[in-house]
Amino acid sequence: MSLLVFGHKSPDTDSICSCIAMTNLKKSLGVDATACCLGELRKEAEFVLDYFKVEAPKRIDSVKEGDQCCLVDHNEFGQSVDGLENATIVEIVDHHKLGGITTSSPLSMTLRPVGCTNTILYSMYKENNIEIPKKIAGLMLSAILSDTLIFRSPTTTDEDIAAGKALAEIAGVDYEKYGMEMFKAGTSLDGYSVEDIVKMDFKSFDMGGKKVGIGQVMTLDIDAVMDKKDEFLNYINSTEFDMLYLAVTDIIKEGSYLIYKSPDEIISKAFDVDADQGVFVEGLVSRKKQIVPNLTPEVEKF
Amino acid sequence: MSLLVFGHKSPDTDSICSCIAMTNLKKSLGVDATACCLGELRKEAEFVLDYFKVEAPKRIDSVKEGDQCCLVDHNEFGQSVDGLENATIVEIVDHHKLGGITTSSPLSMTLRPVGCTNTILYSMYKENNIEIPKKIAGLMLSAILSDTLIFRSPTTTDEDIAAGKALAEIAGVDYEKYGMEMFKAGTSLDGYSVEDIVKMDFKSFDMGGKKVGIGQVMTLDIDAVMDKKDEFLNYINSTEFDMLYLAVTDIIKEGSYLIYKSPDEIISKAFDVDADQGVFVEGLVSRKKQIVPNLTPEVEKF
Repeated sequence: MSLLVFGHKSPDTDSICSCIAMTNLKKSLGVDATACCLGELRKEAEFVLDYFKVEAPKRIDSVKEGDQCCLVDHNEFGQSVDGLENATIVEIVDHHKLGGITTSSPLSMTLRPVGCTNTILYSMYKENNIEIPKKIAGLMLSAILSDTLIFRSPTTTDEDIAAGKALAEIAGVDYEKYGMEMFKAGTSLDGYSVEDIVKMDFKSFDMGGKKVGIGQVMTLDIDAVMDKKDEFLNYINSTEFDMLYLAVTDIIKEGSYLIYKSPDEIISKAFDVDADQGVFVEGLVSRKKQIVPNLTPEVEKF
Repeated sequence: MSLLVFGHKSPDTDSICSCIAMTNLKKSLGVDATACCLGELRKEAEFVLDYFKVEAPKRIDSVKEGDQCCLVDHNEFGQSVDGLENATIVEIVDHHKLGGITTSSPLSMTLRPVGCTNTILYSMYKENNIEIPKKIAGLMLSAILSDTLIFRSPTTTDEDIAAGKALAEIAGVDYEKYGMEMFKAGTSLDGYSVEDIVKMDFKSFDMGGKKVGIGQVMTLDIDAVMDKKDEFLNYINSTEFDMLYLAVTDIIKEGSYLIYKSPDEIISKAFDVDADQGVFVEGLVSRKKQIVPNLTPEVEKF
């Protein structure tokens, strides 16, 4: 039976590229493995696969009892494939906080506090003395550039930079130039509806019993969102979430505009700004390291 | 601030030796670290520390907000130090199933499905090119021999055997001879009360809402328990657990005698034997790989 390797739902570039890189590593080690994804590819990942001429992972929507699963770039049931509770998790490689998964048997799990799953995979290739093919190196580099905003995000570690530079060498690309090209292709909001944009990179959290949604969109075209602020508010307010935050992140200005369904007080306290729909929070670029940890205590207190 | 490194409550030889081996590795990598333990040392660990002339870890009972913690040989809040929910978990190295810990930040986590935490630590020493001192190698070997019953337990992997043999070489001991000596010293039940023996290596589980306790005692002196079967039953029946199982494991006969507070039916179905107090189950030696997975569905169904 083939090992099913997949990233999280609503897959980003790291989830797509890490599942392909992990599948290639497993195959190189003699394991029958299949790269899978839990949702449609976004423009950025499409650009990356197209650029390096790699086939997209196989789309799956659920797994069943007996399936052997390897999770990359996530470690929470809520972000993973339907039916995972009944399948067997044999391995997890991830760079997020621990999300409370339980298993009935021991497994392999490699979590590191780095900026990108592919940085961990790079070290796993090295530890196993497996050569990284040029195309795979291109994918791994793309994911690192995507997750670290070309090494600008505060989540970036020295390890991410070292892995990224080594992978750029193997892939034969100028990472700064390639990264900007990738972001431009990936952040174009042409053809997306308001709902599409909110759900583009969306995660649900339980904060002290409240159902909280946080969407983040990285774009080089801020006006495409800000010109439709009222449309976004109408949609966000119509959702079932107790609180919902949309962060529109400008990767060049290194900050985020916030549109939200939430008491102003929470925004003001969490981000030290005068809350207002569309407020710009300087330096706020990471959901994982900044938005979630800042919001959690304020929402729980409220 | 010193990184606090500790194994689980009611520490066994692996918890004691892995916290010392991990602390030494961290120090070798320039990290200020302190080996700690969450309870009194058992005879086996005392024998090991005495044999290799290594100081016991520092006893701690709780941690507080801001403390930096490294967990070895466990990954569940219920088995860990009091106050851990408020402290910061920066690293986990373990070989057990995933127990549902959540964190608010990313961390390092290395889980492998091997027989002993020290087998993982051995590979971490190698990956970091850190030489293992003779005394530390002796401790690491002891833990591997203890957890794998000198490579007899079904939890034993090829990696455990390779690490154990390499460590025996560094420590300069004959592992079979040393292992038997360690088990004899460690499994003597002299001076222990019935309650001590039940709680010696005891873990609590939630199985479908039922509170289940499982104690395991490895001994070369079975009669010390069987001669007092009624005393054990009196004590076990007086506890608050819905079900409680004591497995008295004979590491030479490679099986366990079971004394229990439980419907006979669960025992019969889980272990395919005619249930009876003190029944011997051939081949049953691992709580993690055999007792827990066999009991869980039967208890949940009941």
